[in-house]
Amino acid sequence: MTNAEPAPEPPRRGFRTGRLEAFSDGVFAIAITLLVLDIAVSEVAGKHLLRSVIDLWPSYLAYVTSFSTIGAAWLGHNAITEYLERTDAAFIRLNLLLLLFAAFLPFPTRLFADYIRDDNAERVAATFYGICLLLTSTLLLVLWRYAVWAHLVRPDADDEEVGLLTQRLTPGLGGYLVLIAAGLFVPVVAVVGYLAIAIYYIIPFRRLSAGFFPRRRRPPGRDA
Amino acid sequence: MTNAEPAPEPPRRGFRTGRLEAFSDGVFAIAITLLVLDIAVSEVAGKHLLRSVIDLWPSYLAYVTSFSTIGAAWLGHNAITEYLERTDAAFIRLNLLLLLFAAFLPFPTRLFADYIRDDNAERVAATFYGICLLLTSTLLLVLWRYAVWAHLVRPDADDEEVGLLTQRLTPGLGGYLVLIAAGLFVPVVAVVGYLAIAIYYIIPFRRLSAGFFPRRRRPPGRDA
Amino acid sequence: MTNAEPAPEPPRRGFRTGRLEAFSDGVFAIAITLLVLDIAVSEVAGKHLLRSVIDLWPSYLAYVTSFSTIGAAWLGHNAITEYLERTDAAFIRLNLLLLLFAAFLPFPTRLFADYIRDDNAERVAATFYGICLLLTSTLLLVLWRYAVWAHLVRPDADDEEVGLLTQRLTPGLGGYLVLIAAGLFVPVVAVVGYLAIAIYYIIPFRRLSAGFFPRRRRPPGRDA
Amino acid sequence: MTNAEPAPEPPRRGFRTGRLEAFSDGVFAIAITLLVLDIAVSEVAGKHLLRSVIDLWPSYLAYVTSFSTIGAAWLGHNAITEYLERTDAAFIRLNLLLLLFAAFLPFPTRLFADYIRDDNAERVAATFYGICLLLTSTLLLVLWRYAVWAHLVRPDADDEEVGLLTQRLTPGLGGYLVLIAAGLFVPVVAVVGYLAIAIYYIIPFRRLSAGFFPRRRRPPGRDA
Repeated sequence: MTNAEPAPEPPRRGFRTGRLEAFSDGVFAIAITLLVLDIAVSEVAGKHLLRSVIDLWPSYLAYVTSFSTIGAAWLGHNAITEYLERTDAAFIRLNLLLLLFAAFLPFPTRLFADYIRDDNAERVAATFYGICLLLTSTLLLVLWRYAVWAHLVRPDADDEEVGLLTQRLTPGLGGYLVLIAAGLFVPVVAVVGYLAIAIYYIIPFRRLSAGFFPRRRRPPGRDA
Repeated sequence: MTNAEPAPEPPRRGFRTGRLEAFSDGVFAIAITLLVLDIAVSEVAGKHLLRSVIDLWPSYLAYVTSFSTIGAAWLGHNAITEYLERTDAAFIRLNLLLLLFAAFLPFPTRLFADYIRDDNAERVAATFYGICLLLTSTLLLVLWRYAVWAHLVRPDADDEEVGLLTQRLTPGLGGYLVLIAAGLFVPVVAVVGYLAIAIYYIIPFRRLSAGFFPRRRRPPGRDA
Repeated sequence: MTNAEPAPEPPRRGFRTGRLEAFSDGVFAIAITLLVLDIAVSEVAGKHLLRSVIDLWPSYLAYVTSFSTIGAAWLGHNAITEYLERTDAAFIRLNLLLLLFAAFLPFPTRLFADYIRDDNAERVAATFYGICLLLTSTLLLVLWRYAVWAHLVRPDADDEEVGLLTQRLTPGLGGYLVLIAAGLFVPVVAVVGYLAIAIYYIIPFRRLSAGFFPRRRRPPGRDA
Repeated sequence: MTNAEPAPEPPRRGFRTGRLEAFSDGVFAIAITLLVLDIAVSEVAGKHLLRSVIDLWPSYLAYVTSFSTIGAAWLGHNAITEYLERTDAAFIRLNLLLLLFAAFLPFPTRLFADYIRDDNAERVAATFYGICLLLTSTLLLVLWRYAVWAHLVRPDADDEEVGLLTQRLTPGLGGYLVLIAAGLFVPVVAVVGYLAIAIYYIIPFRRLSAGFFPRRRRPPGRDA
């Protein structure tokens, strides 16, 4: 800080990352918290409240699944912005599109919880739910791929780490496709599968977690 | 930081910009996320859930339109505060007024989605929706015009860029007026038009995006 | 910053102000945005939607009144934290109590909007509304008085400014008491009065605005 | 700042604490504010609104109890992150799990308020409520214990302080267990007890407040 080197890191990261992160954090946090509003026992529960509360298990399953999926998307979003040196106009728009789908998730969640015990409707509800989860995950991958393609990633980011994050964000998409198909026959199984994908994204396996949580922020060599 | 030059940029920007931005980001993020609460299939959907989900297209159209409009307002708000050196008391109050209208948008959105298939009511709903969108956009322009008029803009901001942002925020207003009139006859077309205006604000055309996302933050010459 | 004087300003302010402000901003922003959820036309509006939308004026009045009151509380909260050098444990608890009342406001707001046209109920609704607004404003003043009493205010804060903010936060309380009494006879007038108090808090009169938005943050003499 | 001492404090704290705190603050703030949505007088209150408003006391009790519990969890969360030097992948996942339970609290709150006057259902509602509060508090303690175990705590943190925070977070759990059992017989008493636990967490007793609000941030010796 003595000479011509005025702490270049922060300004370089792009001047808008701060508010983009704040706004995205807000939308993720609100969407994840609104999920609870859709859990309700029917008006006439009265005497058999215990049974009513237990019978709500599809609501709990849907709550945990959507909470985990939005939580995983937030973790992924974190990992992505962590690697960014700056953002550009297209990135900010793609990010809005991602948020549009993430903020929409409470609706298919409620639909699934409401119709899971209805023989015909449950297939529709589970499939619709899966498609919405797939779109959210796809846009997260698109956001990351765009960031890499448009050279928004910090130059000091390890190629291996960048590759790991790409690998990490990809396989879930195939999983969703398989489960959406399965959901046409066994809807509950599909939703348990959606939950498994979310947990797969969330659980930090050793190497994978490195991709999600890069340890270094400063250029290599400065750590030593 | 050795001599008389104590990093003057941040303190100059006005000490309250931080919380004003945080509060505004919060309101925009919540308003945009609450939109989903108004999407619901009728209680008796049951057997024909697929049809019910498809029949909700006005809700989806309204969701995307309002999401895009609030998203565009947030982008515009970002662009405005980015140019500010400081805020003043009147700016903060105008900002509250803008948030009052932005936070109100979920109501006309729901109204439009609910009444779009009702021959008489749809005109009222589409017109009311358009007026609310127009008021939100107008206040965003007023906020910016006030900031320029009251010399709140950073002195190093390029005159051309300032003019570009003004140009960028203005034409939508005429568009809304035309579409509100059109909405009295063809409500759905009007709403598609509202969506088009929001997308016009969001999509970064080359030169325009410069107005929305000024690249420089430091005084000219320091980049070289 | 040359010697042993490591930028003492920020650490001194109390290490928790950041999250206290972020959490408070969040609660204010959410409470202010939830207000819109309580505006709804009755299910059977159908043909006469225009009339239904116009007949909702009590909802709009209540929305604007509560929005302005919460907005004013946020401005006052901003002014208070701006003067703080640090927070202490009791301040943080008082702040939670203030948020408890502020976050409660959507309920009396809805009550007023729902019952304003019911001859008996409107008195109850307007009085209850007024009491909740009074409690919120009182706690804001208590918070500020406590901060002054416990010497949490920055030592460089002008005594006159501190006095001005106290003056600024006080008179509304008397106004609420008068209006709550008036509300027993003319409920709508009382609510218009509540709105007037909120606007009085918000509108920046010349000297008063100085109390609300202190210009200096650094010790006197450093500006010269 | 001249030589090899590049302000080590902030980078050391772990690069993700900022967004983890912002996201957590958001979820706590939203969950605490959503509680008000579940307070409503029945549709037919009309003439006897005063009585209806008074009869809502279980809703107010539940509101205050859940508000205090979430507020206490937020304070505890603050105290925990205050001691952290950095976070790791497991900590972030445990934090998500804590938020999953905290964001769920509005549901049992509503359930308790709705069924407290129903002889059979009130036991179920109070027990369910207590279990959810217990799980939230347990996870807060688990989060803190994990942070200590995984050496995420700042090395300059006083052992005594660390022990105090552990002590502070622990006894409530036993209290919940006792009250959950009591709730099977006297549900309202149990809920008043839940409120008492929350207030115990919130009220700053002298020594305990030290555990919740460590005064020092810098290494010992630098204060002198």
